Amino acid sequence: MLWSGWGDPAKAAPLPEGTAGLLRDLLGVRPAAAAPPALRALKVADPRLSGADLTALAAIVGDGNVRADAETRVRHTRGKSTPDLLRIRAGETSDAPDAVVLPGSHEEVLAVLGECAARRIAVVPFGGGTSVVGGLEPVLSEAGRTSTPHGAPAAPRGVDAFIALDLRRMDRLVEIDEVSRTAVLQPGLRAPDAEALLAERGFTLGHFPQSFEWATIGGFAAARSSGQASAGYGRFDDMVVGLTVATPEGALDLGRAPKSAAGPDLRQLVLGSEGALGVITSVTVRIRPVPEAREYEGWRFASFDAGAAALRRLAQDGPLPTVLRLSDETETMVGLADPSAIGEGASSAGCLAVLGFEGTPADVAARRAGAAEVLRDAGGEPLGAGPGEKWEHGRFNAPYLRDSLLDAGAFAETLETAAFWSDVPELYEAVRTALTGTLSEAGTPPLVMCHISHVYPSGASLYFTVVSAQGEDPVEHWARAKRAANDAIVDAGGTISHHHGVGTDHRDWYAKEIGPLGAAVLRAVKERVDPAGILNPGVLVPPAPEA
Amino acid sequence: MLWSGWGDPAKAAPLPEGTAGLLRDLLGVRPAAAAPPALRALKVADPRLSGADLTALAAIVGDGNVRADAETRVRHTRGKSTPDLLRIRAGETSDAPDAVVLPGSHEEVLAVLGECAARRIAVVPFGGGTSVVGGLEPVLSEAGRTSTPHGAPAAPRGVDAFIALDLRRMDRLVEIDEVSRTAVLQPGLRAPDAEALLAERGFTLGHFPQSFEWATIGGFAAARSSGQASAGYGRFDDMVVGLTVATPEGALDLGRAPKSAAGPDLRQLVLGSEGALGVITSVTVRIRPVPEAREYEGWRFASFDAGAAALRRLAQDGPLPTVLRLSDETETMVGLADPSAIGEGASSAGCLAVLGFEGTPADVAARRAGAAEVLRDAGGEPLGAGPGEKWEHGRFNAPYLRDSLLDAGAFAETLETAAFWSDVPELYEAVRTALTGTLSEAGTPPLVMCHISHVYPSGASLYFTVVSAQGEDPVEHWARAKRAANDAIVDAGGTISHHHGVGTDHRDWYAKEIGPLGAAVLRAVKERVDPAGILNPGVLVPPAPEA
Repeated sequence: MLWSGWGDPAKAAPLPEGTAGLLRDLLGVRPAAAAPPALRALKVADPRLSGADLTALAAIVGDGNVRADAETRVRHTRGKSTPDLLRIRAGETSDAPDAVVLPGSHEEVLAVLGECAARRIAVVPFGGGTSVVGGLEPVLSEAGRTSTPHGAPAAPRGVDAFIALDLRRMDRLVEIDEVSRTAVLQPGLRAPDAEALLAERGFTLGHFPQSFEWATIGGFAAARSSGQASAGYGRFDDMVVGLTVATPEGALDLGRAPKSAAGPDLRQLVLGSEGALGVITSVTVRIRPVPEAREYEGWRFASFDAGAAALRRLAQDGPLPTVLRLSDETETMVGLADPSAIGEGASSAGCLAVLGFEGTPADVAARRAGAAEVLRDAGGEPLGAGPGEKWEHGRFNAPYLRDSLLDAGAFAETLETAAFWSDVPELYEAVRTALTGTLSEAGTPPLVMCHISHVYPSGASLYFTVVSAQGEDPVEHWARAKRAANDAIVDAGGTISHHHGVGTDHRDWYAKEIGPLGAAVLRAVKERVDPAGILNPGVLVPPAPEA
Repeated sequence: MLWSGWGDPAKAAPLPEGTAGLLRDLLGVRPAAAAPPALRALKVADPRLSGADLTALAAIVGDGNVRADAETRVRHTRGKSTPDLLRIRAGETSDAPDAVVLPGSHEEVLAVLGECAARRIAVVPFGGGTSVVGGLEPVLSEAGRTSTPHGAPAAPRGVDAFIALDLRRMDRLVEIDEVSRTAVLQPGLRAPDAEALLAERGFTLGHFPQSFEWATIGGFAAARSSGQASAGYGRFDDMVVGLTVATPEGALDLGRAPKSAAGPDLRQLVLGSEGALGVITSVTVRIRPVPEAREYEGWRFASFDAGAAALRRLAQDGPLPTVLRLSDETETMVGLADPSAIGEGASSAGCLAVLGFEGTPADVAARRAGAAEVLRDAGGEPLGAGPGEKWEHGRFNAPYLRDSLLDAGAFAETLETAAFWSDVPELYEAVRTALTGTLSEAGTPPLVMCHISHVYPSGASLYFTVVSAQGEDPVEHWARAKRAANDAIVDAGGTISHHHGVGTDHRDWYAKEIGPLGAAVLRAVKERVDPAGILNPGVLVPPAPEA
């Protein structure tokens, strides 16, 4: 993973020709002042761990698996939000972990947590490092550094150092149960490796979020990831039927049946817990046969409203495609659904919908024909396979494209939410207005694009992409715009995140979403499993109100 | 609801002719010694509430809505398990609530909980009163009576009286959102009334558990109910997208979108909480159009294994019927799938599967044809509509039939579990062996029948019915058999309940299922929302280990 951007440098996605001019003319983008520094030029502060700390951790995981060199620490600093990238490109390493620890087993994770609780060292679980919500930026106690504006709950007094607990060594497919169609996966397994291992036995997870190439199984579970094919395969939390979790107070082993009436579903307390309630050490997931057929196609609708109504019909009455998404007018015009063609979208009036169908040939043919009937009846115009296949081809490209935009001096970021269908139109307008208003006020009027990325019978998610000039202080400008968007989301009745998670960035709005008693319940759970307060402090769990 | 049995006395289901002889010959059933007493002959102890207690509660809910007369108290005593019925028929009223309180709103529920917390009065939410797992039998503190063998956690010291919080006044359909296809329902709304109100607008919930005629919306949510049409409509917990909950420490208002990545799903902490974590005061559910077509049919398989394999294929690869169930050889022979024909099953070799299809005519036809192809390929023999329609006609009859069996001197009870598909065969054998062994040892060898009642891609539920002679002490005999079955379930890797819940009956096995840390987490949540320990004490939440 590129330390200053996304992914594999060999896959970099240069901006299409002419885009620079478009960015300049449309958004006032100026070339970036300076290139990012070299990795070796970055300085990190001295680790705040003692030799005894490091020795004790090495005694658990082995000498080579406790690392405190600068490069390793920089590579585990924060996640991959645009502010994260801008800060690391500016050489800002104040959130670097004091060491990186690589456990090899559930037992080692338990032992590391016990040791860290005793030594008051915070622990930030690290999978693919792809968080875009500040999920890897703990808020330490007063003595500890933090560059973030987030307030309490800091870690308890004395917790002023942290390790990144990198789970990459726990990367096995432990077991496949072909009868039950489940697989036990370790948390550090990266998604492409999981798919490859499952494919050897004829199975797939079907989980393809934009972070697919780098994200891990544990991260998917901890952050309630949702993939591009969620209409067909479900969200990741739908796929999980079992979990083991290590906490400083012991382990949880959950899931004896797909569904149960034996009390609250504690699996659902671990899913979305973002490392604040424990470290997920194995995940049992539902798997499916590798589809024999895959077909993608495009449809055009006259307006976003008309397209949304058509998607709603498919979500409520079927037949449901495997992939189903709809770009608004701006995103369609810019051609973001096909990043290779940005700027070529002049002919793309209306709104582009992309549908994908995966399964047996007969099933694909039947669903595709059924969906076509519904979409035609809803005013859709079929565009054939082309736009669908282009989307499929570029489905993991957007983060690479963002790097190129940053290089060119533009600012680009995304955010997302979900709501019930009847709230979607107001939510859409409110977020657009908040983003456009705040960024225009800051002197960097943005292009705001949106697509419906996931659908359910009762609602849908909205995924926004913002591109603007960087302006004087893009991190601060964005923080203001993002706060306004978050307020708009909560006020319009949406959830603060449909699939990115809470982290530190969304925590204050999450607190509003679940209310004071919901936050108190979460704190009670956290205090029970993590009395020393070492697990990802400051992430997810809203602070107690001041007395 | 019949105080000493089930449902509407006008719907009583007399045993088919010849059954009495069959019961005598096969199981040694002797006629019951005496008829149950008249309701007015039942004595209840003096209420342990002061005049001041009753006045304070009446000040909240109104004078007519606090009732302490004997008949009302008897009608709110325990639930509808067979031991519950045997005890109440024996005039055993020691678990009667001290008063019955009928709140009319969320605010009144909040106020009642505050008052009861201050006065140390336990509160047992009461919907349809259909619990079969001891969910309405709180365990009070030492000073309080309890007839149950359940130990700690009793309510905290001083909590020695309880009210049944009967939610029948909160029975409105608050709102329908036709765009999002959701409805807001109050907890005391009975299922048939909910269906009637929704049907006026063209919608249905599609939730039809055996308790349908009497159970309430709040009870479905609190106990994670699963209906007979769960393959098509989902379990009740799948249908819930929002909840409001009143606790002694305030309210929770959860659910801003169908799905979210904003932290753990706290809705899933409330679902299945059985009144121990709060009182559900409204439920927002997904609704669907009333199906235009409904078709039911029967299939025969050579063995339970062969039938289970066929059901698994439908659950994993589709097409999925709306109703899908499979009786084992014994249940098929007895004809329990068609209670009106008990004893006529001699010709019913093999195992009967019942399939139901609901939806648009085209959808029903397509799925029915697709399923037929799969089942034929899996060795199934189509039996036509007859057995399916018979099942559909009698789908809510079994509890009435149980009353007649009890009247005839037989013992009849059910229990259920779920597991992943690969664990199902061992689970099936283990539970049968445990039930047969313990009851035979007690001198009342049983008939043990089973059916697969709900299917998922990764597993299924098993629903067992036991019929035997009552013997000397049927309550104690059954307690022993049930303990053995529970042990067998947990040892074989199943969940202690797929849809009946935990209550007091399953609590000790539930503790094993979630482990010590899972139990500690639940206690931490309960202590946060119910520090006085008044909410359904002894139900669901495993006791803290003794120091």
